[in-house]
Amino acid sequence: MSEPTLDMVAIGNAMVDVLAQTTDDFLAAQEKSHGLQKGTMCLIDEQRAVELYSEMGSGVESSGGSAGNTMAGFASFGGRGAYIGKVAEDQLGEVFRHDMKEQGVRCETQPLAVGAPTGRCLVLVTPDGQRTMSTFLGAAVELGPDDVDPDLIASARITYLEGYLFDPPQAKEAFRLSGKIAHDAGHKIALTLSDPFCVDRHRADFVELVDHHVDILFANEEEIKSLYECENFEQAGKKVMDKCEIAVLTRSEKGSVILAGGDVIEIPAEPIDRVVDTTGAGDQYAAGFLFGYTAGMDLRACGRLGTLAATEVISHMGPRPEMNYSDLLSKIAA
Amino acid sequence: MSEPTLDMVAIGNAMVDVLAQTTDDFLAAQEKSHGLQKGTMCLIDEQRAVELYSEMGSGVESSGGSAGNTMAGFASFGGRGAYIGKVAEDQLGEVFRHDMKEQGVRCETQPLAVGAPTGRCLVLVTPDGQRTMSTFLGAAVELGPDDVDPDLIASARITYLEGYLFDPPQAKEAFRLSGKIAHDAGHKIALTLSDPFCVDRHRADFVELVDHHVDILFANEEEIKSLYECENFEQAGKKVMDKCEIAVLTRSEKGSVILAGGDVIEIPAEPIDRVVDTTGAGDQYAAGFLFGYTAGMDLRACGRLGTLAATEVISHMGPRPEMNYSDLLSKIAA
Repeated sequence: MSEPTLDMVAIGNAMVDVLAQTTDDFLAAQEKSHGLQKGTMCLIDEQRAVELYSEMGSGVESSGGSAGNTMAGFASFGGRGAYIGKVAEDQLGEVFRHDMKEQGVRCETQPLAVGAPTGRCLVLVTPDGQRTMSTFLGAAVELGPDDVDPDLIASARITYLEGYLFDPPQAKEAFRLSGKIAHDAGHKIALTLSDPFCVDRHRADFVELVDHHVDILFANEEEIKSLYECENFEQAGKKVMDKCEIAVLTRSEKGSVILAGGDVIEIPAEPIDRVVDTTGAGDQYAAGFLFGYTAGMDLRACGRLGTLAATEVISHMGPRPEMNYSDLLSKIAA
Repeated sequence: MSEPTLDMVAIGNAMVDVLAQTTDDFLAAQEKSHGLQKGTMCLIDEQRAVELYSEMGSGVESSGGSAGNTMAGFASFGGRGAYIGKVAEDQLGEVFRHDMKEQGVRCETQPLAVGAPTGRCLVLVTPDGQRTMSTFLGAAVELGPDDVDPDLIASARITYLEGYLFDPPQAKEAFRLSGKIAHDAGHKIALTLSDPFCVDRHRADFVELVDHHVDILFANEEEIKSLYECENFEQAGKKVMDKCEIAVLTRSEKGSVILAGGDVIEIPAEPIDRVVDTTGAGDQYAAGFLFGYTAGMDLRACGRLGTLAATEVISHMGPRPEMNYSDLLSKIAA
């Protein structure tokens, strides 16, 4: 095992989020006409992206992408990190790379010079704070094994992968290659399942991965139920229990559950005045948890950090921290 | 006087804002090295924009521009509006035009096909919620009299102009032309002074304008003091009193004062839990006030609407409404 010089490297679909507040009626019409499902992500092509953008309200743009959000939060806690993901050489790509760099995250993936524009995720935020996402992958679809820097992966204590990477065909190869390099170097692999429909699309792959390759798994209630095709959460929890070293299951206002070595650790949710926008909740939970983990904290403290970060991010529009997460560290001392 | 079919047309420098939270130390360093002054706007060239962007933290992008923000807020109240302003044919320009259109604002200015990119305003937000702006005008510098649609101006009850338009040379001509068309049609001209340094740069022009051409003037305390080179607010208020039909002077947490026909109407500030970001405060005050005015409300109600809109916009990051301002109308009934 080589001594890690980085705490974490994340690989994901690089995206700029366009968040717009919308009404329940608008979302219902989109559900009917285009099969959107509240709280989940669907893939769309460029034409549909243009069409939906022209119909949705005025928006706020910010760097997003599930693993990108996690890496930004992880760095905000003080973790040393890098990110692998593909944008285009355009204004939104510049925004994405700038935001990573300024958060202190190394981000050296070669941008796509010709072809698709930077990927974007059109996020409809309903009055209840739920987000429903339509993703045009754009340049992210070109991420492949050539973008994986083996030395970078081998240098990191944790390689963090988002399930969404299973959608673009070559990214799946990048994903598998990275996992192998990380394990060969004696380091850990963390995976987030990303979305129940993403799990649906790639269930056999994910089951195999979780069984044999993943050390730390993140999933929310719907995702873990989808993975094992279970009706209820407890059944799904039992199934995942002995499959990976640590399984972290998040349940929104019901808090989260950490399953590790036969132990079940329940972490309550944090009180919050008003949920403004749930975009990034799972991503920032993972950021807090993994920062705690790389800092050698016990699992309960890791879960608390995840909860505090998720609570911050749902209190405002946008998927990334609007505070220094290192200021949250004092809150778990008590 | 032709019967207006639009409530308001606004002319301004079309901008995308890039907001980043920053520390007092970072701002102090920028004040020292580049003469930034907290709470104000300075103009920068493209090279400096690239440099500052590379130094500032990760940001949130949203459509901005002072008059653009006002128009978005005005439309959110339910006002019928149009906007004249110049972006480029690029991704940020598309964002700007989309956001206007989706807010229900007509925005038909021809984008700039070649040359400068869409203008941007790099906004440093300090922990006290104050914003310090560095503006690269970009394509906005090409706005000129050819972009003024005389029929559009003549159709609007109010033509609203931002003082920032005095910075790009041709925009000043567009500004003067629009004012003449509006008055010839028997309609009103409103002006916001925008910024104390902008007033400094163009004081003689502004004094002449306010004396002879402006019906409704918006200024904050620093701006009105700068206009008349007064040491204190009361002196400046006395000077402006008989210069235009209505002068609206905003004073942050001290509320606002409306001077009209010898009357002095004081509007208290609205209580707020936490000021997150003052970007857009003056813009949304003007939006609320002018919506009330075009709806035929009395001046106190106009001031209350302005106050409520400004209070909403400073409670979150970004210069535009994150709620339907029409929902504020019920609050002034009492």
